[in-house]
Amino acid sequence: MQTMQYHKILSRGGEIEDRLRQLGNVSHTEGVPGIWRAIHTDTDHCAKSILRDWLTDAGLSVSEDAFGNLYGRLEGQVAETILAGSHVDTVKNGGLYDGACGVVTAISAVKALCEAGWKPYYSVEIVGIEEEEGSRFDLSYPGSNAIIGGLSQEDLEIRDEDGISLRQAMVERGFDPSKLPSADRRGQVREYIELHVEQGEVLDRENIPIGIVENITGMVMFSVSILGEQNHAGTTPMYLRKDPVVKTAELILRLTERIRQISDRGVITFGEMKVHPGVSNVIPGQVDFSIDLRDGDRQALLEEEQAVKEIILNAQQDGFGVELEMYSHENPVPLSREMTASLQEAAEEAEIPYKRMNSGAGHDAMIIGRVIPTAMIFIPSQDGISHSPKEYTRPEDLSRGCEILGRLLVKRAGGF
Amino acid sequence: MQTMQYHKILSRGGEIEDRLRQLGNVSHTEGVPGIWRAIHTDTDHCAKSILRDWLTDAGLSVSEDAFGNLYGRLEGQVAETILAGSHVDTVKNGGLYDGACGVVTAISAVKALCEAGWKPYYSVEIVGIEEEEGSRFDLSYPGSNAIIGGLSQEDLEIRDEDGISLRQAMVERGFDPSKLPSADRRGQVREYIELHVEQGEVLDRENIPIGIVENITGMVMFSVSILGEQNHAGTTPMYLRKDPVVKTAELILRLTERIRQISDRGVITFGEMKVHPGVSNVIPGQVDFSIDLRDGDRQALLEEEQAVKEIILNAQQDGFGVELEMYSHENPVPLSREMTASLQEAAEEAEIPYKRMNSGAGHDAMIIGRVIPTAMIFIPSQDGISHSPKEYTRPEDLSRGCEILGRLLVKRAGGF
Repeated sequence: MQTMQYHKILSRGGEIEDRLRQLGNVSHTEGVPGIWRAIHTDTDHCAKSILRDWLTDAGLSVSEDAFGNLYGRLEGQVAETILAGSHVDTVKNGGLYDGACGVVTAISAVKALCEAGWKPYYSVEIVGIEEEEGSRFDLSYPGSNAIIGGLSQEDLEIRDEDGISLRQAMVERGFDPSKLPSADRRGQVREYIELHVEQGEVLDRENIPIGIVENITGMVMFSVSILGEQNHAGTTPMYLRKDPVVKTAELILRLTERIRQISDRGVITFGEMKVHPGVSNVIPGQVDFSIDLRDGDRQALLEEEQAVKEIILNAQQDGFGVELEMYSHENPVPLSREMTASLQEAAEEAEIPYKRMNSGAGHDAMIIGRVIPTAMIFIPSQDGISHSPKEYTRPEDLSRGCEILGRLLVKRAGGF
Repeated sequence: MQTMQYHKILSRGGEIEDRLRQLGNVSHTEGVPGIWRAIHTDTDHCAKSILRDWLTDAGLSVSEDAFGNLYGRLEGQVAETILAGSHVDTVKNGGLYDGACGVVTAISAVKALCEAGWKPYYSVEIVGIEEEEGSRFDLSYPGSNAIIGGLSQEDLEIRDEDGISLRQAMVERGFDPSKLPSADRRGQVREYIELHVEQGEVLDRENIPIGIVENITGMVMFSVSILGEQNHAGTTPMYLRKDPVVKTAELILRLTERIRQISDRGVITFGEMKVHPGVSNVIPGQVDFSIDLRDGDRQALLEEEQAVKEIILNAQQDGFGVELEMYSHENPVPLSREMTASLQEAAEEAEIPYKRMNSGAGHDAMIIGRVIPTAMIFIPSQDGISHSPKEYTRPEDLSRGCEILGRLLVKRAGGF
């Protein structure tokens, strides 16, 4: 295969960009700014029918599973499948690239390979996954969960803003909810490959076109309250104060320093903060804040979680009340080491610079990667912008992503 | 006078407490919890008519000035006056002691002295000042400003929540706004003495019954915005962050430390804080917070103000945007050194423990003290609670306040 002119046939950035625009053009909903595609809406329906055409054009046989995930299949010598794709849906006021980019790039790559005469050993499927963002139904990755048998009948009772249940929405589009178990592809799918925009600015800032994802970071979320003594800002001397704002400032700096010490890939964010009562001439009695802690390494995340607990609870020693609730804990998902190695080989053969990195955001690859060997390719997001109509990835980066994805497909599905 | 049994005649805590309760009983307004007396309301009118009775009972001749401040006058050998009192009005949901305590205690003290045969050299007046709290009309100390000629006709155009102007409110109660200049007592009043509850917990914690106020602290108010880079909490590594929450934490600690270094009487408070957008998984792009800075010493306050500016603006060096607005600046008001010395003598003669301290809150004494020599006596606020129905000062502390106020009146007005 080393003689194959991958670069020539897979530089499909122009086609991919054009197709993402076409999908965007049919994805406007009255009253919602930007792009919005959510499961079983009109824009989703329309986008999927365009995707059907492109899948068919690429020589794939098209189907939908019982949930609504869209598939295009290229039969190999064996039925066992290498699955590639990403999600079709978007957030409200979203952009062209998040999700769709992985589906469209997979179509372009498979089409190009087939035109060059590719006959894979394993069957190859392209998937357009539904509702990754949960922008219509507030569920955690229902489309990819359906693929690994992780979506229950009860989950279908969830309702959208208009009171329509997911079950109703499925029925209205001709899907039979009782057939949901048939969407489970475990046992058929050998490996899963997802190309996605980074949604961060590491690649763009460092001018590296390919990210090889090693882990989807785990995440621990805390809500914290520090309780001091509310008092008059004028009549309470500093030595009599128990000021939770000053204590919180201390905690933030100590936590930031500690997380950096434990791992250079750990991140900690204090995104919400409220002081009570929130009046300029009153020393607050209470500060509430959130902690969002992430790391790709399970052991490091555990150590960081422990450090957060210790540092926060330590404020009690100084006479402050402390309320600490860990309301979410997701372990990191390590991606397939073997597939990651193939990815690195692909990048080296293509002489395309790459960076091994973690994904700080969740993806369908996180769900599928728990049970099926999974690889993930990142391409740059300009200025790190995502979940916005301003999302942008340059056509040359789309081309490089397409080349790496194509090379990986050949490595993993075999044949030529 | 050393033979005078001040302690015996001035221990009027029981009477004072009883009278404060009586005033409280007529100070309830439908729909407002706790006590509420504001200028020219029914509760104010009612409280002042009770105060008239007590002033008359003490042998004083009663009048009101053109604004509504209530006076009781004891003629001395000369017309020049020693004025003692405090404010009659309260905040909404207020308590029995803030303000009224100073008026009622002055009445008890003068009555007791007169009953003991006191004939002062200077004339003595007791004043019940209006609207110190600005709880009906959002004006800065209009009652005491009227006394020093600092209230203008334009000020009377301010409206309450119901759209009634101060001018209308005055007319409805039979006051003639055009006569406002006649409320100006400069030239007639030689000295002003105010007894007030501390509204802080220094005296209560240290178990000291008398505070001798040296200065009313000055106050500088800032609003600050620190602008960083809003980003995804998962996909932005620590080294790429410009997190205004972490920067703000640094600033708060640095400011707190610096103010403590400059003066042990300076206080700094961060009472308001908002992070934007305030979502747990988003690194905030901006933090807004308030700084309330106070010190009784003018030079120290200037130095502290300078330190705040330097430290905050220094965040620009690290690439943060900084918006810093100083929206209020009031210089400290030093009280009369001579009267403060008399107060200390009085406390020493009475063998009552005292503490020389600053007032961190504003008072009518701050307004009057700018143009007329002024002294201020603090008595303890239990647990430092004020502006609340829970305000409480023990009768024995009211007695000690009354004794010190009585002794000071004799020292300053002369005679016996």
